[in-house]
Amino acid sequence: MALTVHSHEHYMREALKQARYALQEDEIPIGAVVVLDKQIIARAYNQTERLHDVTAHAEMLAITAAANHVGNKYLADCTLYVTVEPCVMCAGAAAWAQLRHVVYGADELKVGFRRYGNLLHPKAKLLRGVLAEECGALMQEFFARKRK
Amino acid sequence: MALTVHSHEHYMREALKQARYALQEDEIPIGAVVVLDKQIIARAYNQTERLHDVTAHAEMLAITAAANHVGNKYLADCTLYVTVEPCVMCAGAAAWAQLRHVVYGADELKVGFRRYGNLLHPKAKLLRGVLAEECGALMQEFFARKRK
Repeated sequence: MALTVHSHEHYMREALKQARYALQEDEIPIGAVVVLDKQIIARAYNQTERLHDVTAHAEMLAITAAANHVGNKYLADCTLYVTVEPCVMCAGAAAWAQLRHVVYGADELKVGFRRYGNLLHPKAKLLRGVLAEECGALMQEFFARKRK
Repeated sequence: MALTVHSHEHYMREALKQARYALQEDEIPIGAVVVLDKQIIARAYNQTERLHDVTAHAEMLAITAAANHVGNKYLADCTLYVTVEPCVMCAGAAAWAQLRHVVYGADELKVGFRRYGNLLHPKAKLLRGVLAEECGALMQEFFARKRK
């Protein structure tokens, strides 16, 4: 991966901004950005509540927006940054989009895709744990609020 | 499942109509309908080419449309009919939507979700093989054309 560690954190901070928008709107706080040639071409946050749509995960919206941006459904040269380990649905979408680089923050042991094997594109490289603590803290804050 | 075998075939024929629209538009011919209280509340076909969007599978579009129709992201009382075994992405979406009944036509051994385990909702009942031959024949026709 050509990007430096500093860059990963930079882009993950942008994904975290998106996650905070979700938190403000009482959505599960997950954010994502898609990067091409060091430029962010798509930003999105989870909007399942607002849209009454289980498919409106941050990653799905970001992948759709990125494809619109480049005018191509394949995003092989792009990197997806997402604050939390993608679910099966989103990992499947990343595979179909042929995303070769996926970077996430916090592990999601319950509904993350990794327990089902490698669902990403066969050529995809996965980097985990970038700003994991901050990414995970947002989730904990959300669920702690919900329990009150 | 309360529906009779006759009913399954009836709804699968409607999904097949959708798949044929996809074929006409040179899309991979997969169609889906969502049924609630014996009524079809959503119909969709694969539009990944037209929309330049890998997430635009028939099932995804049908789930989103059904949720819009009922004004609720959960579709526990609905049945999804789809002509071909869903992929990992679509199975994940069906799980999030809590779909309790999923019926498909033809197996998809290469990219179908079943090789990864049960990705549907834990309470979901799966029925396979309804009009499998007709559903599979459309796929074969499409890929035979592509090879020419």
